[in-house]
Amino acid sequence: KGAGMTLATLNKLCELQNLTSCLLPQEELDIRPKVSSLLGKLVNYTNLTQGVKEHEEAESTDGSKKKVSKSPSMGTLMGVYLPCMQNIFGVILFLRLTWMVGMAGVLQSFLIVLLCCCCTMLTTISMSAIATNGVVPAGGSYFMISRSLGPEFGGAVGLCFYLGTTFAGAMYILGAIEILLTYIVPQAAIFHPSGAHDASSAMLNNMRVYGTVFLILMAVVVFVGVKYVNKFASLFLACVVISILSIYAGAIKSIFDPPEFPICMLGNRTLSRDQFDVCAKTIVKDNITVASKLWELFCHSTNLTTENCDEYFLMNNVSEIAGIPGAASGILKDNLWSNYMEKGEILEKAHHPSVDVAGLKNNLHLYVLSDIATSFMVLVGIFFPSVTGIMAGSNRSGDLKDAQKSIPVGTILAIVTTSLVYFSCVLLFGACIEGVVLRDKECVSHHPWCICLMFLFLQVFGHGKANGEPTWALLLTALIAELGILIASLDMVAPILSMFFLMCYLFVNLACAVQTLLRTPNWRPRFKYYHWALSFLGMSICLALMFISSWYYALVAMLIAGMIYKYIEYQGAEKEWGDGIRGLSLSAARYALLRLEEGPPHTKNWRPQLLVLLKLDEDLHVKYPRLLTFASQLKAGKGLTIIGSVIQGNFLETYGEAQAAEQTIKNMMDIEKVKGFCQVVVANKVREGIAHLIQSCGLGGMKHNTVVLGWPYGWRQSEDPRSWKTFIGTVRCTTAAHLALLVPKNVSFYPSNHERYNEGNIDVWWIVHDGGMLMLLPFLLKQHKVWRKCKMRIFTVAQMDDNSIQMKKDLATFLYQLRIEAEVEVVEMHNSDISAYTYERTLMMEQRSQMLRQMRLTKTEREREAQLVKDRHSIARLESLYSDEEDEGDPVPENIQMTWTKEKCDAEKRNRGSAVGSFRDLISIKPNQSNVRRMHTAVKLNEVIVNRSHDARLVLLNMPGPPKNTDGDENYMEFLEVLTEGLERVLLVRGGGREVITIYS
Amino acid sequence: KGAGMTLATLNKLCELQNLTSCLLPQEELDIRPKVSSLLGKLVNYTNLTQGVKEHEEAESTDGSKKKVSKSPSMGTLMGVYLPCMQNIFGVILFLRLTWMVGMAGVLQSFLIVLLCCCCTMLTTISMSAIATNGVVPAGGSYFMISRSLGPEFGGAVGLCFYLGTTFAGAMYILGAIEILLTYIVPQAAIFHPSGAHDASSAMLNNMRVYGTVFLILMAVVVFVGVKYVNKFASLFLACVVISILSIYAGAIKSIFDPPEFPICMLGNRTLSRDQFDVCAKTIVKDNITVASKLWELFCHSTNLTTENCDEYFLMNNVSEIAGIPGAASGILKDNLWSNYMEKGEILEKAHHPSVDVAGLKNNLHLYVLSDIATSFMVLVGIFFPSVTGIMAGSNRSGDLKDAQKSIPVGTILAIVTTSLVYFSCVLLFGACIEGVVLRDKECVSHHPWCICLMFLFLQVFGHGKANGEPTWALLLTALIAELGILIASLDMVAPILSMFFLMCYLFVNLACAVQTLLRTPNWRPRFKYYHWALSFLGMSICLALMFISSWYYALVAMLIAGMIYKYIEYQGAEKEWGDGIRGLSLSAARYALLRLEEGPPHTKNWRPQLLVLLKLDEDLHVKYPRLLTFASQLKAGKGLTIIGSVIQGNFLETYGEAQAAEQTIKNMMDIEKVKGFCQVVVANKVREGIAHLIQSCGLGGMKHNTVVLGWPYGWRQSEDPRSWKTFIGTVRCTTAAHLALLVPKNVSFYPSNHERYNEGNIDVWWIVHDGGMLMLLPFLLKQHKVWRKCKMRIFTVAQMDDNSIQMKKDLATFLYQLRIEAEVEVVEMHNSDISAYTYERTLMMEQRSQMLRQMRLTKTEREREAQLVKDRHSIARLESLYSDEEDEGDPVPENIQMTWTKEKCDAEKRNRGSAVGSFRDLISIKPNQSNVRRMHTAVKLNEVIVNRSHDARLVLLNMPGPPKNTDGDENYMEFLEVLTEGLERVLLVRGGGREVITIYS
Repeated sequence: KGAGMTLATLNKLCELQNLTSCLLPQEELDIRPKVSSLLGKLVNYTNLTQGVKEHEEAESTDGSKKKVSKSPSMGTLMGVYLPCMQNIFGVILFLRLTWMVGMAGVLQSFLIVLLCCCCTMLTTISMSAIATNGVVPAGGSYFMISRSLGPEFGGAVGLCFYLGTTFAGAMYILGAIEILLTYIVPQAAIFHPSGAHDASSAMLNNMRVYGTVFLILMAVVVFVGVKYVNKFASLFLACVVISILSIYAGAIKSIFDPPEFPICMLGNRTLSRDQFDVCAKTIVKDNITVASKLWELFCHSTNLTTENCDEYFLMNNVSEIAGIPGAASGILKDNLWSNYMEKGEILEKAHHPSVDVAGLKNNLHLYVLSDIATSFMVLVGIFFPSVTGIMAGSNRSGDLKDAQKSIPVGTILAIVTTSLVYFSCVLLFGACIEGVVLRDKECVSHHPWCICLMFLFLQVFGHGKANGEPTWALLLTALIAELGILIASLDMVAPILSMFFLMCYLFVNLACAVQTLLRTPNWRPRFKYYHWALSFLGMSICLALMFISSWYYALVAMLIAGMIYKYIEYQGAEKEWGDGIRGLSLSAARYALLRLEEGPPHTKNWRPQLLVLLKLDEDLHVKYPRLLTFASQLKAGKGLTIIGSVIQGNFLETYGEAQAAEQTIKNMMDIEKVKGFCQVVVANKVREGIAHLIQSCGLGGMKHNTVVLGWPYGWRQSEDPRSWKTFIGTVRCTTAAHLALLVPKNVSFYPSNHERYNEGNIDVWWIVHDGGMLMLLPFLLKQHKVWRKCKMRIFTVAQMDDNSIQMKKDLATFLYQLRIEAEVEVVEMHNSDISAYTYERTLMMEQRSQMLRQMRLTKTEREREAQLVKDRHSIARLESLYSDEEDEGDPVPENIQMTWTKEKCDAEKRNRGSAVGSFRDLISIKPNQSNVRRMHTAVKLNEVIVNRSHDARLVLLNMPGPPKNTDGDENYMEFLEVLTEGLERVLLVRGGGREVITIYS
Repeated sequence: KGAGMTLATLNKLCELQNLTSCLLPQEELDIRPKVSSLLGKLVNYTNLTQGVKEHEEAESTDGSKKKVSKSPSMGTLMGVYLPCMQNIFGVILFLRLTWMVGMAGVLQSFLIVLLCCCCTMLTTISMSAIATNGVVPAGGSYFMISRSLGPEFGGAVGLCFYLGTTFAGAMYILGAIEILLTYIVPQAAIFHPSGAHDASSAMLNNMRVYGTVFLILMAVVVFVGVKYVNKFASLFLACVVISILSIYAGAIKSIFDPPEFPICMLGNRTLSRDQFDVCAKTIVKDNITVASKLWELFCHSTNLTTENCDEYFLMNNVSEIAGIPGAASGILKDNLWSNYMEKGEILEKAHHPSVDVAGLKNNLHLYVLSDIATSFMVLVGIFFPSVTGIMAGSNRSGDLKDAQKSIPVGTILAIVTTSLVYFSCVLLFGACIEGVVLRDKECVSHHPWCICLMFLFLQVFGHGKANGEPTWALLLTALIAELGILIASLDMVAPILSMFFLMCYLFVNLACAVQTLLRTPNWRPRFKYYHWALSFLGMSICLALMFISSWYYALVAMLIAGMIYKYIEYQGAEKEWGDGIRGLSLSAARYALLRLEEGPPHTKNWRPQLLVLLKLDEDLHVKYPRLLTFASQLKAGKGLTIIGSVIQGNFLETYGEAQAAEQTIKNMMDIEKVKGFCQVVVANKVREGIAHLIQSCGLGGMKHNTVVLGWPYGWRQSEDPRSWKTFIGTVRCTTAAHLALLVPKNVSFYPSNHERYNEGNIDVWWIVHDGGMLMLLPFLLKQHKVWRKCKMRIFTVAQMDDNSIQMKKDLATFLYQLRIEAEVEVVEMHNSDISAYTYERTLMMEQRSQMLRQMRLTKTEREREAQLVKDRHSIARLESLYSDEEDEGDPVPENIQMTWTKEKCDAEKRNRGSAVGSFRDLISIKPNQSNVRRMHTAVKLNEVIVNRSHDARLVLLNMPGPPKNTDGDENYMEFLEVLTEGLERVLLVRGGGREVITIYS
């Protein structure tokens, strides 16, 4: 129950999260109509979705309603373009872009920006296609993906998106504090570096403390209501725009009048400016040259003595260079190439004069050090959050006049705009600023007032506090954000949220690609400029970026998504909509079936594909549910099972009844754990219905090859001959369709799925070779728990005058080759006692050769088949030695594979000549001429079987075919009854005329 | 034709390659019975398989037959264990193991050996399972994988194995030359380093020249015959054994008496010994201290002046340390940890006294330098070839007495033995030898005579030169090996062959895992100690090792394998055996179908799944093949198509005929490019057969939902009413089964797949709402090339007194929401003219509400459905405004989604009250009471349709349902004829009673 609650909450969370995701790490905005003309339009602009606005309005009972001007239909500019722009531009642009240019160089920075922008652009194309495919209510990525790939994917991706945005919140807070503590009020720091080496850890602790305070503040603001802060929103937008414009202005100004920004260098190393003022070794004070502060720091002495001095300090000059030489200085040339650094490396200016000193580097705290190891991959992860936020437009589809036009146009325009800004910024930073400055994180705040950007909001969950959940959700979100804040480093948090966003974008692309490739009729996006290849490319880029920026985070993110997927699947989310996954299943099934379509499977791949013919009573209940139990034990969960049943009646009137019967059977299948399909047909006559089921069940390569049929109990007592006539008719049908047949007799005594046979035997009476069915069935049964501990015994019948010891040995060898473990026993009987039974075999042979002709085998196949026939032939010999019949003239290759003694081989060759003749004689025997002989055989065989197998768990017997002439039907039934009398559980088996087992791998 | 030839050759190559792969990079062996007792057994030992031996015997016409003692049945020791051992131990053990220990340290070396041995051990387990699953002829990995995963995989893996072994040949040659040029005859070098920096490139050139010479020599030897070299084989085996034993002996000896192996160090740097003799700065010669050779080298002067001296030389002492301090020295402690180096780094001894000098390092050529950058990953790739060769045993299964026992036991024992040797060698090397010695590749030849190992053979292709191919194959192999030799560095070639072997092992594991999980009945390995999890682990390790040792090689190897796979698949390899992939397809199809089984699809996912009922004439030819053309155009290659046909007769006798008919239909499907399934049933009456097809076609969730039926042409002329009676019966059946029905009239005039309509219209006469079928069908048809350029027009019928402009606008909006592009036209007609037609709609409504009840919808679903009904209802209103009927009381939600004017909405609400009443009135109308009205409607409608759509490419019309009373059947046929008279191509459409299109995404 608890889990269910959690799931419900989780689902709710996702839904709510996405409903309000446009609220996420971004500034609220509410511009007053001060500027006329174009800005006049901005009157109606708000970054809140309708739902949130309504909530806010409902809350504001103090008459502030007039101020919020409600507009249900927004245009592209107000509804999509501006919100997207606002969401895309973020803290990274101002805090890390210069640093990135310094590290990666202008060219590689271009590449990073290009990669990230391509990724979002392609995702936008996919998203546009999905968003313009019918009415899209609010809900963003979760909605889009759950509607196209199902709730499992939707939930997983939605939660990823939620985690991403939560971490983004943490990142924004960290960014704000970084600026606050570095530029605005450095004196506010609580922890101060106590030694040379813990500068960074002190900073991190400051971040943690202030971050947590900020977070609590934010949570309170959200709890009270966003609308109070919303009033300052116009200020924030202005800041963003002015900041960006000022970058361009500054760059242009730097051409004519580069700003003064001196950097103090010792040799080629950059000195950290916060511990000294004058950039010189000595200063002239009152006309006396005294040691500067720098000298004191490096020499630990206020005198101009050199004894304790740092060697590098002595050997190198102190110089001052321009930090921002301006666009005209040609500094761009130096900044073109990358300059990645290890953690703790000193910022050095290449080609600057310097004398190197061997040994350990001292006084590291006086230099500017790299605080993180950088590489192309790391920078990708840190930059990526700057391009997220593209879903802001699609999240507000409910508020748009024409969502299906505005979303693609607005989002794509926003991406183009922001991409251009990023590219130009990279170029300008590279062209104007000295490399060592770029690479120093703490030097890059061009305008201290960009702090005003950093006022930001935590996610608002849900539309009110009336419902208990949002408070809970707010707490959860705050906790997760706190996690991000405890990490404390912007550079560490950024890759984490990159992962989650990339994951989300990946699935948007996947959803578009899948639907395009499946060509669902419902996939008719109004936005036409999509293509599955583009979506696929986008998907690949997302995946590549995930693994490029951090392969272990990527794996963790995937693991989290996978776990959520499985959890939602396990909980069985209630689907109120159709999804593309069903279409995918259908396509997969169709593709797999079409692949199968080519011809019957090879002997090696043969497995019983069952058609179980169930009888229903008048109340549509299953008459012998143990048939299903037996089927489930035989399949052990693998392969095809079709349960067929026939209802007598007229289809036009019996549709409802058939549906009900199908439901009954399906319930019974669930109980008996049969995984398969159910097929109920209505027919005027049961026999016809069964014939049609046998003919038309299955699809393509997924057809049954074995029919399971119940024994018509009480046929002797019943006056109505239809029952056993139907039985014999079905037997004839299976023979005609070349299917195998299994008839479990006394099926009610068969074990249920809960029983376990811990001992006992499965006895096979292998009198006629049936292609191996009799060998294979016990093996398959033994895969199931019920039969696992049973032993298999094979009985074969020998003539009195034969060498039964050699025969036993041969059979044991054959079983060894088949890798089947069984005890072999040879029972001696008079030939005359069993001839009626083995007569059947020759019919089988006839069928087989006919089949071979029909199958139009290729030459090689025929050779292979011939070899199989040979094996069978060899086995058949085992019996033919003890019967008066001979095999027909199948092609027998010279190369003999089985273990035969030379004499036997010769004997066989000698016999072959007479074989055809004696076979012809046999056909001429009319079945009804041999009735007496048949009955005699049945009685004798039954005697022997009962004698040896009376305590067996299951007895498998060959089932002879029914007489061609229907006059003998009753005799045939009697024959079977006599044959199986006194045995508890009998399975009558009739092969389908093809090999089902082979010694080859 | 050329491609076919190439494929044939390729296949042959794979097969041959694998047949003889046991011959691959290894030493031939033919020990004479000199040593008695245990070695006496070795008499019969040979590393050749039976086939090769026979070939060799056949070739040796010079009476050498007596010498080769033929033994068709070998035991585990001779047949598997020794060949495996011999194949596994290789050049790497002697050339690179010490170096690996030096670089990676003892612990990480253990890890490398463990990883590699685990990989081969797990692969052996999988291989044993595959090899003991039935008779395995020779052929190795290719055979095993092609038999279990299909020829495509087999070919790909076989070729990988071939490339691997070929590169292994190159590696062995390179190893031999490395030893030759480094230790035996360094003076044989052709290229000499001319400067300080090209020492390695000179060596590489030497390798290339000598390698090519060796390769040509080998090729000649193979071309002439292996048997001449085979005579020295015994010598090689002895060498391997003695070499390994000598390692142990040396280690034991080193405890008491460490060998003298001085290393000259300058500071902590190792000096290269080949340019000086005395390890000192000065020597005392004639009592005068003069500069040593070392001094000369570093100071470029024979005097003891220091002016031009290397600074490092001056500041550090020259010392000599013991290179092999022995196991008792405790050197193991220093060698435990890794000491990876960059390329060109100087070998330094850690913790050795040294004074560092800043600036560039000079005189690098005097020190021992690392010639390759090392890391754990690189070493894995270089070491892996030392564990390959595990398939030597399984390749000789044909020669084994009991292959199924010998292969697992022998191979596993061989792996255990070799693993123990590797582990102990790692430990001994680490315990006895100084780190700088270990890390110096050129110092590690403990015993110069291990060169004798390095006599090796190129692959022998095929069994003789009589056939032209082997010569060609030999040349190809030589060329590929030459590629490896041109790479020239053992350390570069080793990872390449690692890739190919790992790929091969990966697939062996995969094959075992797949077969175990599929539980094919044929999967009964005698070797019981396998498990799919082990195979899966093995697979993962293989994959991990591939990517660890070199991810780009791994990708290239996979690409190569993928290309071969696709090539063989494209060429359509002839399968003479069954493979597991078919089982996989079957499982996939079953799994996908079982997933689908849950209920009917959502409207969103609806797509027509066709059951096309084909008529066959007396000669079993398809009567109207254009029905298939139409089906293929409608599906555009997607979704399910079942072609059904009925043959009249008795199933017991007509099986052959049914098979023939199926073949005919399949041929026709190929011609018409219909991808789907074919189902022919034999029935006593055609009508019954069709009824059964409609009921029982398809499987699980993959059922048809639409029936395509031909029009019974000439029903008016025919005396036999069966033709049109069957037609109407089928229409009734589809209605009873809630299926949609499509009847293309004049199907012979429908376009073939080659025609292209570059203009023209598809006209939809949307008179009765049918769940959207009429809207969807033209959209689907337009997906096909034939119809792509047609325009869609929708005609709807309005009453004279209605606002048809508003109606047109509403319909256009609806179509916009549906994202379907169509021209909308409203045709005004008198209500009385069309009422008979719209009567049909109310019946549909009845069906629908019945369906809703039957479907036992959950509450949310019902709400959703209700909304859909609402939409439909809204549209229905469009017509109901122009008819005298009203909708029944479906639940209509208050929230209206469609664009309705407020007035309309109100009007609708007002109407609803009277709706139920008027609906009841309508039901009471007996169909035959309205015959005249019907005919009038037909004539009037036909007039309008012909007027507007006479030049349309296709006209889609609602098809009214047949009368319940069969008396009216003839009238019904007449009605349809009149309705469609004068139209060239008509498609009559009857919805299945459920929505098929929605405005939601």
